[in-house]
Amino acid sequence: MEKTKKFILPESEIPTQWYNIVAEMQNKPKPMINPQTKEPIKAEDLFPLFAEELSRQEVNTTDAWIDIPEEVRDKYKIYRPTPLVRAYGLEKALDTPAHIYFKNESVSPVGSHKLNSALPQAYYNKLDGTTNLTTETGAGQWGTALALACKMFGLELAVYMVKISYEQKPYRRSLMQTWGAQVIASPSMSTKAGRKIITDNPTYQGSLGTAISEAIELAMQTPHCKYALGSVLNHVSLHQTIIGLEAEKQMEMAGEYPDVIIGCFGGGSNFSGISFPFLRHKLKGEKNTRFVAAEPTSCPKLTRGSFQYDFGDEIGYTPLIPMFTLGHNFAPANIHAGGLRYHGAGSIVSQLLIDNLIEAVDIEQLDTFEAGILFARTEGIIPAPESTHAIAAAINEALKAKEEGSKKVILFNLSGHGLIDMSAYDQYLAGDLINHEVSDEEIAKNLEMLA
Amino acid sequence: MEKTKKFILPESEIPTQWYNIVAEMQNKPKPMINPQTKEPIKAEDLFPLFAEELSRQEVNTTDAWIDIPEEVRDKYKIYRPTPLVRAYGLEKALDTPAHIYFKNESVSPVGSHKLNSALPQAYYNKLDGTTNLTTETGAGQWGTALALACKMFGLELAVYMVKISYEQKPYRRSLMQTWGAQVIASPSMSTKAGRKIITDNPTYQGSLGTAISEAIELAMQTPHCKYALGSVLNHVSLHQTIIGLEAEKQMEMAGEYPDVIIGCFGGGSNFSGISFPFLRHKLKGEKNTRFVAAEPTSCPKLTRGSFQYDFGDEIGYTPLIPMFTLGHNFAPANIHAGGLRYHGAGSIVSQLLIDNLIEAVDIEQLDTFEAGILFARTEGIIPAPESTHAIAAAINEALKAKEEGSKKVILFNLSGHGLIDMSAYDQYLAGDLINHEVSDEEIAKNLEMLA
Repeated sequence: MEKTKKFILPESEIPTQWYNIVAEMQNKPKPMINPQTKEPIKAEDLFPLFAEELSRQEVNTTDAWIDIPEEVRDKYKIYRPTPLVRAYGLEKALDTPAHIYFKNESVSPVGSHKLNSALPQAYYNKLDGTTNLTTETGAGQWGTALALACKMFGLELAVYMVKISYEQKPYRRSLMQTWGAQVIASPSMSTKAGRKIITDNPTYQGSLGTAISEAIELAMQTPHCKYALGSVLNHVSLHQTIIGLEAEKQMEMAGEYPDVIIGCFGGGSNFSGISFPFLRHKLKGEKNTRFVAAEPTSCPKLTRGSFQYDFGDEIGYTPLIPMFTLGHNFAPANIHAGGLRYHGAGSIVSQLLIDNLIEAVDIEQLDTFEAGILFARTEGIIPAPESTHAIAAAINEALKAKEEGSKKVILFNLSGHGLIDMSAYDQYLAGDLINHEVSDEEIAKNLEMLA
Repeated sequence: MEKTKKFILPESEIPTQWYNIVAEMQNKPKPMINPQTKEPIKAEDLFPLFAEELSRQEVNTTDAWIDIPEEVRDKYKIYRPTPLVRAYGLEKALDTPAHIYFKNESVSPVGSHKLNSALPQAYYNKLDGTTNLTTETGAGQWGTALALACKMFGLELAVYMVKISYEQKPYRRSLMQTWGAQVIASPSMSTKAGRKIITDNPTYQGSLGTAISEAIELAMQTPHCKYALGSVLNHVSLHQTIIGLEAEKQMEMAGEYPDVIIGCFGGGSNFSGISFPFLRHKLKGEKNTRFVAAEPTSCPKLTRGSFQYDFGDEIGYTPLIPMFTLGHNFAPANIHAGGLRYHGAGSIVSQLLIDNLIEAVDIEQLDTFEAGILFARTEGIIPAPESTHAIAAAINEALKAKEEGSKKVILFNLSGHGLIDMSAYDQYLAGDLINHEVSDEEIAKNLEMLA
């Protein structure tokens, strides 16, 4: 009997609904609040910033299933369903009795899962009569995804790209431009927020928080222009559940059920995407799956942050979000997993962590690249520096299974490939990368500023 | 009824045999000959250079079907079967009645079709007890593919990379190194061939022909070391027929049969791969499909070259190959489609062109990028600069169909993605690229040198 490596669904099995876990959580996440009035945010409060349907999705606590528009599903067909893959090569290299599966989101034409939310965000904005979108991007994964989505639905896009990435990752900038977007290095002189930051600190290399501030400011000041965010928010996690919904069917094809599910963690979009559909069975007491968020040691909001209300951006333009946070002014070390350099976790994931429904681990940068190279050499795919965090955590689980002699079933999300991050691999192979530690004092100091 | 975009075969439908078109050609290609003895090359003559089974495949003129080893088929599962995609987005943009399909070989983890031959070449060498392989790479597609294949089958690999690519495409070098290969800029001081060229011309930026000479020389002088080539040769075309064999089944799923099949053309590997399985029905008089090889205007061996015996490399280490050639010293302009910068065409394709079973067109560099960007913006995938030649030719066919009002069915091979070629797109978008012309005098002069 031939061994199946890739479990493939036909296009007709692309889910027709996203899963809104909030509707089925016993302890709902706390609401976002308006920093001025201290009132909970309602959908209408978000209309100036986001498309109306996205705003409604953001605060929807009652509908567990939300229809995917036909037009979005049609674009999903460019790359979805993505394969579920049995990592025989990695298993063999680790000599583990564990079965390791990964959901391969790297097959998207932008190279990551980000397109899953970019497409509906562009679509709903088009419906509303939006002509222009603004957004921010750190490593560039989200910006490239939204650039393609905007081109497909006929919107103009301006992307504020964290300055250090703008300079270090010229290929990502080129990708966005090839798909027709305008890319601005952030901080820039084009916004009040950017000008203030540049004036205070002329050599500042930028951060996601700053870029978000700039993108929001531009959107608020431009007619028919809205803003789009690639992670953290509830509606983004909602769209990303398409990952786990497909994976659930594919695990069934494989005849197994995961004991542990792993995703890397920045703001939470890919972790939520792979986890929430499986988590619903845990909420209902049907399964006892473990869910592990793998974050960088240098940006440890889940493992060492504090749960409190904080802004999503540097300047404080966003509503206050209930989150595990390191403080919105936290400046993470310049690790190569740029997509994980964010100070806070989305409100749903934060509540799930409080309720012990999920766990978090932190991974050192050198361990992530060691894992990434082993994966590249055994499974053939060069993973994104972000995704290597999930791989490293999966390897740890597989080695534990080996110690225990248990036939654990591990599923992780390969959120993206690293073909445009080769300079990071170069530096690792040359021995030029280091681990970055964060002191308790630094975290405490940042959190004090919130009080 | 939902429209299907991607036609997907299950893993069990990965072909179990490659198709050897030579066995069914009425006019067989002329044999390669030994430049010293002028005798036709026999399999044994190739044993010092290539694995034994590869040598036998090279000269096999009798068996139409050759079994794919189970171990190779197993590795194919990492990315095969690849999707056949209906290019609805492109059709709409062109407003054409034509139906456009493409076979998406860019989903391979190395980003191109090259892995289709790299895997069996590594495998057969391993079988023979080879411990080390050498090869050359131009743009880097073949080198990356062989690096991964060698890692998977436990061989060491040294890659001579054309110097200008080595410098301009650092990411491809990083890819090879991440997969464990050693990469040397060619011309290098490590071989007699390289030393001679550097001495004659210290600023020479390298060529495929030179890199082949260096790789062959190193292989001949090293115990348990063989050489591998990624195009031109019959056994490479043989392995690549897996593309067309899958596409044939997938066109059947789509309920259509191609009127015209298009591939870009460097040495012939991807064009042969998509074409030969369909061509067998033309050989048998069952179908009248057109086959179009799309080459760069700046390297026009099929459209303006001469059919004669020529060396495959710069120095003259290879057997003499019957080919359409511009002369083995032809120095093509430094276009971004590095994989198409080769002076000659494989012997099978050359014979098919003589017999009018296939046709050739040439495409200007600026037209290829215009086509590539339209494709990226309508189908989402950024194509390799090589593959844009096939896209441009497909667009020309679709526009002709529009003029004629005919519902032509077009199939082209998307041989690879361009995610690691973004600097080329940058230059195009900045208006910095030009077309390159070749004068009749230049071609004539080069061919005279052969006489």
